[in-house]
Amino acid sequence: MSVTAPFGFRAAGVVAGLKDSGARDLALVVNYGPSRAAAGVFTRNRVKAAPVLWTEQVLKGGRVHAVVLNSGGANACTGTAGFQDTHATAEKAAELLGESAGEIAVCSTGLIGERLPMDRLLPGVGAAVAALSPNVGGLDAADAIRTTDTVAKIAHRQGTGGYRIGGMAKGAGMLAPSLATMLCVLTTDADLDAAALDRALRAATGATLDRLDADGCLSTNDTVLLLASGSTGITPDEAEFTALLTDLCLDLTRQLLVDAEGASKAIAIEVVGAGAVADAVAVGRAVARNNLLKCAIHGEDPNWGRVLSAVGTTDAVFEPDQLNVAINGIWVCRGGAVGDDRSKVDLRPRDVTITVDLAAGPHSATVWTTDLTADYVHENSAYST
Amino acid sequence: MSVTAPFGFRAAGVVAGLKDSGARDLALVVNYGPSRAAAGVFTRNRVKAAPVLWTEQVLKGGRVHAVVLNSGGANACTGTAGFQDTHATAEKAAELLGESAGEIAVCSTGLIGERLPMDRLLPGVGAAVAALSPNVGGLDAADAIRTTDTVAKIAHRQGTGGYRIGGMAKGAGMLAPSLATMLCVLTTDADLDAAALDRALRAATGATLDRLDADGCLSTNDTVLLLASGSTGITPDEAEFTALLTDLCLDLTRQLLVDAEGASKAIAIEVVGAGAVADAVAVGRAVARNNLLKCAIHGEDPNWGRVLSAVGTTDAVFEPDQLNVAINGIWVCRGGAVGDDRSKVDLRPRDVTITVDLAAGPHSATVWTTDLTADYVHENSAYST
Repeated sequence: MSVTAPFGFRAAGVVAGLKDSGARDLALVVNYGPSRAAAGVFTRNRVKAAPVLWTEQVLKGGRVHAVVLNSGGANACTGTAGFQDTHATAEKAAELLGESAGEIAVCSTGLIGERLPMDRLLPGVGAAVAALSPNVGGLDAADAIRTTDTVAKIAHRQGTGGYRIGGMAKGAGMLAPSLATMLCVLTTDADLDAAALDRALRAATGATLDRLDADGCLSTNDTVLLLASGSTGITPDEAEFTALLTDLCLDLTRQLLVDAEGASKAIAIEVVGAGAVADAVAVGRAVARNNLLKCAIHGEDPNWGRVLSAVGTTDAVFEPDQLNVAINGIWVCRGGAVGDDRSKVDLRPRDVTITVDLAAGPHSATVWTTDLTADYVHENSAYST
Repeated sequence: MSVTAPFGFRAAGVVAGLKDSGARDLALVVNYGPSRAAAGVFTRNRVKAAPVLWTEQVLKGGRVHAVVLNSGGANACTGTAGFQDTHATAEKAAELLGESAGEIAVCSTGLIGERLPMDRLLPGVGAAVAALSPNVGGLDAADAIRTTDTVAKIAHRQGTGGYRIGGMAKGAGMLAPSLATMLCVLTTDADLDAAALDRALRAATGATLDRLDADGCLSTNDTVLLLASGSTGITPDEAEFTALLTDLCLDLTRQLLVDAEGASKAIAIEVVGAGAVADAVAVGRAVARNNLLKCAIHGEDPNWGRVLSAVGTTDAVFEPDQLNVAINGIWVCRGGAVGDDRSKVDLRPRDVTITVDLAAGPHSATVWTTDLTADYVHENSAYST
């Protein structure tokens, strides 16, 4: 399961001592090939952590041999010295694996603005290399990248002819994570070149991880990598591979959503009737980021007025008096005004679906978010202190 | 004090029975001239309440005789019937004042998506007309427009030659109010035409009320009106008038900020070294809307990494490795990396100043916001139920 579900990969998760808790905090994923084709997508934040700047460069070559990931520190806003720390991490892994640092990706997650304790991290890389395994290492790695995640997030799928895709993730949203970073490593033993992997990864994450928006905050460290070993020799139909990868990413998205910090509701905002997919995503994101609505859902209050006021902040194509809104299937707003009886809305279940009909076209998109809770405030008030 | 500080105005605040609490809920401000010149600014939300649609039309004529304001219901997302309710309110006031409804502005605040109880509101207009007074009516009116405001917000200033400006406000932010709407009525006995009032009002609110961003949520009802009676016969220098009006609006902004729902901190985000004022405002607003930072400030945690990650979401001109951040005067981030010792930051006072130096030019702007608290979640989870 996890990143070792496909053939050709080994992984490890060890205790390097970066976390005070003594939990696993350093993961390693190694692709033994024969292919090393890889693709990546990264945070759109202009303030990028050192490992993001490094790994973006690595991915330009379209090849990744190994990924070193650490929790316990984001290595963001750490200046030139922080970048040198990332470089030294890649060099250490390269040395131990007998490779060039130019094919070693690095990911970090944790507090921003603090240097990593390299005297513990570098020995941790050695321990991880020694612990590499083709089976349990996948789960150990998924465990090691957790920060406030209460559970490890893993998934795998099998495609036509038997090739596999596996993956692990931590955090709560690629573009807008809850506490800190979303890190995700996806692996496959299918044989696809870097360009095909890049297309598939952008399509898959664009419709899944990229539409998870727990609190609207954009991390400095978000990274999603896709590594292909090609060890099955199967080159799948690209559309099939993309669909399978999308399904796996949706699975991980769902796991991230239900484990988001302090959340008591998992909210899907389905925008339908849009003039364009971009309009549907923009509306979904505006609704997902509306603190007043997120509070209302937490209070199990079907406050559709807050949905409309969020929709009204976008430049999507719609007419205010044509908008329809359903909450858990009850169309509480029709034609921009009061619709069916709001007392019929049952908001007790954890899963909540808000449907916004823009009545402007045939396109749709779903954005996922959480409610806003006192627990969220508590966890994020007390994080670094 | 309030809207009756200038000559030529009378006001009232009465109990119409719109609020279950039995508190005042209907206000009336009447300009007895000789001038009726007026200007207004409104929410940028595309989903606009009926009174906003009505009052925007009234203001196109550049003249306002009276303003009817109600709390206890926003009359937003109420369709054609809701617009007819606003029209009927204006007609009722016009009839009682012996005027045309075309010079009667209407403002509403409260829950979205519910019709107003016109059988109580229209008699309330009659009671307000009967209660009009040139002194205590100003305070009564300021009291009647409160929703969750714990105190009435009023201010007045005196200019060269003795002309006055007065004002009242409710809510917590024009473009991004906390719970519901920001409503503000400003009055003056100076003699300025509608065009001059419009220029002064846009300049004043653009630098004050428009930069108060409690929770990033954009109301359907926000309205700021400026009425001139011209009764002193003084036509002030426009620059002086604008400065005085700006100072008064800053006073009201400050009152709204410290009374924002559930807030325990009043946060000023001063952006300096910007390439343009628009850049400074964009950065200030991005920082003001970052839930993670707002939680950190609530926890008295000088988490400057969250400031940088918010700055990085904007397209303002800056280089990440040139950014400097001070929290309450301590430069905790220099050159995009760790600066002075964060333990020196004292976050115990209610007032917090976050200074962001973009190191990209001579421009600056301040945006005000609040911390994110469990009380905010509580108040907004339980509002309509």
